[in-house]
Amino acid sequence: MQHFRSVKDADDIQMLLKKAMSAKANPLQKNLLGKGKTMVMLFFNPSLRTRLSTQKAAQNLGMNVITMNAGQGWQLEFKDGAVMNLDRAEHVKEAARVISQYADFIGIRTFPGLKDQNRDYGELILNQFIKYAAVPVVNLESATVHPLQSLTDWLTVEEHKKKARPKVVLTWAPHPRILPQAVANSFVEWMKKADVELLITHPKGYELAPQFAAGCQIEFDQKKAFTGADFVYAKNWSSFSDYGNSPTVSEDWMITTAKMSLTNKAKFMHCLPVRRNVVVEDAVIDSANSLVIQQAANREFAAQAVLETLLEHIDT
Amino acid sequence: MQHFRSVKDADDIQMLLKKAMSAKANPLQKNLLGKGKTMVMLFFNPSLRTRLSTQKAAQNLGMNVITMNAGQGWQLEFKDGAVMNLDRAEHVKEAARVISQYADFIGIRTFPGLKDQNRDYGELILNQFIKYAAVPVVNLESATVHPLQSLTDWLTVEEHKKKARPKVVLTWAPHPRILPQAVANSFVEWMKKADVELLITHPKGYELAPQFAAGCQIEFDQKKAFTGADFVYAKNWSSFSDYGNSPTVSEDWMITTAKMSLTNKAKFMHCLPVRRNVVVEDAVIDSANSLVIQQAANREFAAQAVLETLLEHIDT
Amino acid sequence: MQHFRSVKDADDIQMLLKKAMSAKANPLQKNLLGKGKTMVMLFFNPSLRTRLSTQKAAQNLGMNVITMNAGQGWQLEFKDGAVMNLDRAEHVKEAARVISQYADFIGIRTFPGLKDQNRDYGELILNQFIKYAAVPVVNLESATVHPLQSLTDWLTVEEHKKKARPKVVLTWAPHPRILPQAVANSFVEWMKKADVELLITHPKGYELAPQFAAGCQIEFDQKKAFTGADFVYAKNWSSFSDYGNSPTVSEDWMITTAKMSLTNKAKFMHCLPVRRNVVVEDAVIDSANSLVIQQAANREFAAQAVLETLLEHIDT
Repeated sequence: MQHFRSVKDADDIQMLLKKAMSAKANPLQKNLLGKGKTMVMLFFNPSLRTRLSTQKAAQNLGMNVITMNAGQGWQLEFKDGAVMNLDRAEHVKEAARVISQYADFIGIRTFPGLKDQNRDYGELILNQFIKYAAVPVVNLESATVHPLQSLTDWLTVEEHKKKARPKVVLTWAPHPRILPQAVANSFVEWMKKADVELLITHPKGYELAPQFAAGCQIEFDQKKAFTGADFVYAKNWSSFSDYGNSPTVSEDWMITTAKMSLTNKAKFMHCLPVRRNVVVEDAVIDSANSLVIQQAANREFAAQAVLETLLEHIDT
Repeated sequence: MQHFRSVKDADDIQMLLKKAMSAKANPLQKNLLGKGKTMVMLFFNPSLRTRLSTQKAAQNLGMNVITMNAGQGWQLEFKDGAVMNLDRAEHVKEAARVISQYADFIGIRTFPGLKDQNRDYGELILNQFIKYAAVPVVNLESATVHPLQSLTDWLTVEEHKKKARPKVVLTWAPHPRILPQAVANSFVEWMKKADVELLITHPKGYELAPQFAAGCQIEFDQKKAFTGADFVYAKNWSSFSDYGNSPTVSEDWMITTAKMSLTNKAKFMHCLPVRRNVVVEDAVIDSANSLVIQQAANREFAAQAVLETLLEHIDT
Repeated sequence: MQHFRSVKDADDIQMLLKKAMSAKANPLQKNLLGKGKTMVMLFFNPSLRTRLSTQKAAQNLGMNVITMNAGQGWQLEFKDGAVMNLDRAEHVKEAARVISQYADFIGIRTFPGLKDQNRDYGELILNQFIKYAAVPVVNLESATVHPLQSLTDWLTVEEHKKKARPKVVLTWAPHPRILPQAVANSFVEWMKKADVELLITHPKGYELAPQFAAGCQIEFDQKKAFTGADFVYAKNWSSFSDYGNSPTVSEDWMITTAKMSLTNKAKFMHCLPVRRNVVVEDAVIDSANSLVIQQAANREFAAQAVLETLLEHIDT
């Protein structure tokens, strides 16, 4: 594994899962592996879980971590050949190469603009960093995927499943803002490789991008979808086809106790942050079947599995 | 001691004082105690001394420290049962629980809004963090108290007192802005437990909240109050009774050399930052009797005493 | 060396160069030298290279680093005797002394206001910090000089020169914004002490301050200046005589392949960030003769040489 941009970069996802479980059992077992090495994390967008859990994971491995909020008075140019006479002070060509001089790994957090689908789905920012960086780049959530979250989600499903091939339902849920598709895209991408029965439910018009949803079962009736579910993974996303918008949905898609009662005592999952009583009722997220805090806890070990794999790669 | 929210959480304040003095004599003597442990400090408000001194203290004990400025594009909901369809992205229920997954201690800095007395004096933010966190919470100054400052102040008085029971005068002083009562409240709360003769002086209308000032001697004539003082602790605070306001004061309450000459060669104290020539004349704060820098230095050791006590508590 | 404000503070610049080269050969060779010591870096202005490289250098030496962005809701007063009843919350007298209680070194980044030449060239902020700090202060770029950059530049010239006394041309270049003279001033100050033939070329009206440019060869014809150059160091700066302005320049001063062909296969240098296709053509900065990334990499070792020297000084 040279970079960690999405599940496609993982040579062996079963090994990642195994490493994450091992890190969870004993977080400091490899705390000399990253000694003398530095991870620079660059945030173009706010972050709580990713920032804390990735820093913690890197420190568990003995690495130094330097965190920077990009965009505090310092804007990057991403287009090759640009005449830089406006407000962008530095080209990613220099920024990525320069950070590579001080960092053994570069973590990048960057949200989509949700205006230009080609730019977002081309992963311009992440890919330009990867193109110019001289060291491994770790995706801390990009325009279209959030692989550290998805590996966490998979780990959490594995820990809590009660049968060999559980039914996992990814359900759209309401939200007051226009959100990226990254978490949903990425969840689908990883679940397709996991030993689960995946079903996606969402209102018409909220189909995920074909490159992610291809081959997936879709059910537009949320209640039907929930029937017999072992895991309900809730997430809002904005429309892919009507890009940058969230068309009005007349039915109520909030996750409620009543709807959860249709499932096979399903575990409730969400990546957080979550809008209580909009995405999900208090009674569901506060119930014993809610795994949201366990998911957050697992972020540390998913990140640790990825960083450990990258450290082993650069050492060989 | 499970959390450190105020003096009320300290099982043994003499032991805290002793630990602070010992840390000062040899800051790195216990630098394996916190090894492999992480403190996350969350700042809802700016901080210089608290941020640097607490991070230093934690590092002296061998801990990792992760500092976050909250509110950079990320607002928390604190009300239970809220329908979160407006601008608050995450509930403290999740935030506190999630941070607890990565942190051994959580430090919280949060100022009062100075609009709603019940909300401020109910310590909504701090108490919600304590309610939902799974790990000890350290108050890095909250709406109504600043216990790390007060422990520092007490340590400084103990180091510089020249008689068994010195006269300590807390005096209100002018300020161009509307300030919290936290430092004054907290100073009174700790001084009541110390072996000092405490006198509070302030203009009428600036009485501290009864739960703090109860049982204290009050003198409205600043010059009378200063007579025979061994320590003069200056601080501005806004009105508690006329909440959120600072009614005009006609007399001059600035601390001057002339007023200090009424004292028993008193030491001058202030928590900083201080408005020179508004709160206190240059000649006083620059004099040999000024302890403001010694106070700031002691912040490190007060924090270290508290963190050490919490580390011992979680280890047992 | 007590502080590191400019080349004038360096007792022995050849020793700094030697230390930088040695650090580059083996960055962790002295990683116990700074153990238990803390560097606080205070940024009044944005920074990428300086921030990362100095933190990395300090960590290579085993130091703890605490980074703060000043001015996030916290403004300093720098004038002695000020009546602080406006928006500045703390005097540098307290700030510098207080930070000194927690820090073994203080790094300061502060740009000029480019409005008041006396204030900028008097280095008010840096000098007030030095006046009041109780520990060594390191200039992370100040109003008029950027010595860590210049030491880096000199190291890079030494590594890449092909003759004993290379011809080094400092050339002004266009830029859409009004920039400080700090990098250019400082480069000149160090190059005068190096074994190089220094030539400065800029449009009329862009003369550097006499205290820096005195004794330097100036050539107003850029193409003439480039003839036979071994190194071309490009940088924009605003006018010193018409302070705070950048008078229009009619000729084209961008560094192009055509102009570089006049040189002795010169290496291209720039401190970064650079405006591509404004300061320099893509073809030049992307060529094999471009040293900009090597310069950035050397920042770490220049900083390490300076910090190592300061650590040795405080230990003796």
